[in-house]
Amino acid sequence: MFKINENYLKLPGSYLFSTIGKKVNAYKEANPDKEIISLGIGDVTQPLAPAIIDSLHKAVDEMAVRETFRGYAPDLGYEFLRSAIAKNDYAARGADIAVDEIFVSDGAKCDSGNIQEIFSINNKIAVCDPVYPVYVDTNAMAGRTGTYNKETELWSNVIYMPCKAENGFAPELPEETPDIIYLCFPNNPTGATIKKPQLQEWVDYANKAGAVIIYDAAYEAYISEEDVPHTIYECEGAKTCAIELKSFSKNAGFTGTRLGYAVVPKALKDSDGNSLNALWARRHGTKFNGAPYIIQRAGEAVYSEEGKKQTKEQIAYYMNNARIIKEGLKEAGFTVSGGVNAPYIWLTAPSGMTSWEFFDYLLANANVVGTPGSGFGPSGEGYFRLTAFGTYENTIEALKRIKEL
Amino acid sequence: MFKINENYLKLPGSYLFSTIGKKVNAYKEANPDKEIISLGIGDVTQPLAPAIIDSLHKAVDEMAVRETFRGYAPDLGYEFLRSAIAKNDYAARGADIAVDEIFVSDGAKCDSGNIQEIFSINNKIAVCDPVYPVYVDTNAMAGRTGTYNKETELWSNVIYMPCKAENGFAPELPEETPDIIYLCFPNNPTGATIKKPQLQEWVDYANKAGAVIIYDAAYEAYISEEDVPHTIYECEGAKTCAIELKSFSKNAGFTGTRLGYAVVPKALKDSDGNSLNALWARRHGTKFNGAPYIIQRAGEAVYSEEGKKQTKEQIAYYMNNARIIKEGLKEAGFTVSGGVNAPYIWLTAPSGMTSWEFFDYLLANANVVGTPGSGFGPSGEGYFRLTAFGTYENTIEALKRIKEL
Repeated sequence: MFKINENYLKLPGSYLFSTIGKKVNAYKEANPDKEIISLGIGDVTQPLAPAIIDSLHKAVDEMAVRETFRGYAPDLGYEFLRSAIAKNDYAARGADIAVDEIFVSDGAKCDSGNIQEIFSINNKIAVCDPVYPVYVDTNAMAGRTGTYNKETELWSNVIYMPCKAENGFAPELPEETPDIIYLCFPNNPTGATIKKPQLQEWVDYANKAGAVIIYDAAYEAYISEEDVPHTIYECEGAKTCAIELKSFSKNAGFTGTRLGYAVVPKALKDSDGNSLNALWARRHGTKFNGAPYIIQRAGEAVYSEEGKKQTKEQIAYYMNNARIIKEGLKEAGFTVSGGVNAPYIWLTAPSGMTSWEFFDYLLANANVVGTPGSGFGPSGEGYFRLTAFGTYENTIEALKRIKEL
Repeated sequence: MFKINENYLKLPGSYLFSTIGKKVNAYKEANPDKEIISLGIGDVTQPLAPAIIDSLHKAVDEMAVRETFRGYAPDLGYEFLRSAIAKNDYAARGADIAVDEIFVSDGAKCDSGNIQEIFSINNKIAVCDPVYPVYVDTNAMAGRTGTYNKETELWSNVIYMPCKAENGFAPELPEETPDIIYLCFPNNPTGATIKKPQLQEWVDYANKAGAVIIYDAAYEAYISEEDVPHTIYECEGAKTCAIELKSFSKNAGFTGTRLGYAVVPKALKDSDGNSLNALWARRHGTKFNGAPYIIQRAGEAVYSEEGKKQTKEQIAYYMNNARIIKEGLKEAGFTVSGGVNAPYIWLTAPSGMTSWEFFDYLLANANVVGTPGSGFGPSGEGYFRLTAFGTYENTIEALKRIKEL
């Protein structure tokens, strides 16, 4: 008789955004006349840039003709896209990443969920708290996180690194040595960043401890301040301890278009000399069949002169929203952080309110949807996330309503 | 110190088609003047049908405008596509599959690699031999297959069901009871099919044994004979024992466009009543972010009147190639099977030759690339696969060369 993977049964409740969706739908059904503005899920609202659209149409036309039709893509991604990534995201930042260290995927969510597969089931992970739920949930599914305590909302076999106002929402080096460290900067959900010397400390720590850093740089394009690293490979020694995950979702609006990539340096090896690059290549070759050709051409267009200019304008649009949210919340008396190098604004719920209480309060009284901080981990309790990914008009209206509360 | 997933180190050599690619490239470099025809990897050569191209262009245009732009897709796929699948692939065949039993993915390779995740690591799998390598390799990566014996080319903890000329390339019910049974009909690589009464036997067996059948129906569109089931859900009781995997790669040329789906019936439960549908939904929601919107629209177009007509013509084109290959090989004195309900022709290598010897012989003397049967498992030794996915002109030329050997 077949048995299921019992680790799945240990997972608490359902995925955060499903829960929010259900709450919002219930509210809508009960209040069909209310106009709800969502600054909740980190989903973009601006259409794809013209250069990307042109590239998509061109690639579609190629698929219509036998001579230019493309079947199976190279497992690891087309050379044209991997070269553009190596040149623009790495060489231009002084980081020397080779084309065969770049693995094109159908998005950073998939990569951040799948990357744990190439590690031992006995490895111990360290995560920031609050944290993007996918890191922990996928390790839980694999059986790496022990048991879940409903009271504390913590897993028994995970090292949590609290990120609160007290430490500027930046994790401190953990006391217990982890095997795998998940870091995300600019951070989802807090919008916090760390400067290059601080990231260098993490790299040095990982190299010394023999730990791997899974560095999620999905929000890199939103960095506006100097000395905030755009890639972990700006740090010395990162190639022997870090995997970097990148997405086209937030810098170019690909949330519904699906494209991302992972960098697994060839110098990254275990104590027996086994190459993680080779393991990830094997995983890609066996379980994945490449991102669609036309989508990879869309990704290439992000790096064209026009594409760079147009996506930069979109980011400026969202960051103007971030400014409006941050300033508006301050005017309304809230304590806020983030929103400078990231499209997320992290605010403290009014005194005495839990994150979910504030969620319900905001939904009912301002018809604005945000994301409860506690949904990202217990240290997120009492905090709340708003995103800059709405339209300008909705953002203005949402803040007007919040100020009137 | 981090450790790797040591199961990866147990995997033999590299993926079959990578090895073929390397051999072909080496031959090309040594013989730059030779014109090589590949009837090896199962990759299509016909461009996407006009109805699909139109749909892609339309969807791209929607992505260019704020009002019609689409961000994150529903985890499990857009309703428009899932409805079209339920109606055309199931209701039309008399199989009652609900929309929320259908999970849209980026291809059947991914699904067939990922599906094992929702099962216990202690489950024992049964596979046909020869077999599509992804089923076994992904279970090996998870640690479910024991140790690999280089001599026998068998894993210690896998139940193999030999498919040879003696049994018409159809597996027999295994003596030892498996927990998970992988079946693929029409079969890759042998091109064999089984009739509905035989498939019903498998369904009855699985229900009685408490086993799950993973039914790979990627080549369903190539069925030309009566009484060969198009879906396992034509069999009574299949919804309590079977998961079905489908692809758009072979019926509509999506190998480089990436789209597939899995059917996980809600009635499929373990002995404790845990729903596999719910587990797969959780897996999708946590590790996957949907197939691209524009690709899902392309999938929808496959089910339009024009789309059906045009893709049917493409299949007829490939099946004409299959006929040419089969008849040509017979004329040349080969023993062949397959090619009637499947785009694969399975031939016996000339006496005394191993599969790889025949591969080398055919490459060197006819400049034709096929796939060695032994690459799909030890019972494939002495056999060889040719695919009907080449162009008509190349297929004619390849057979001309083979006949002249």
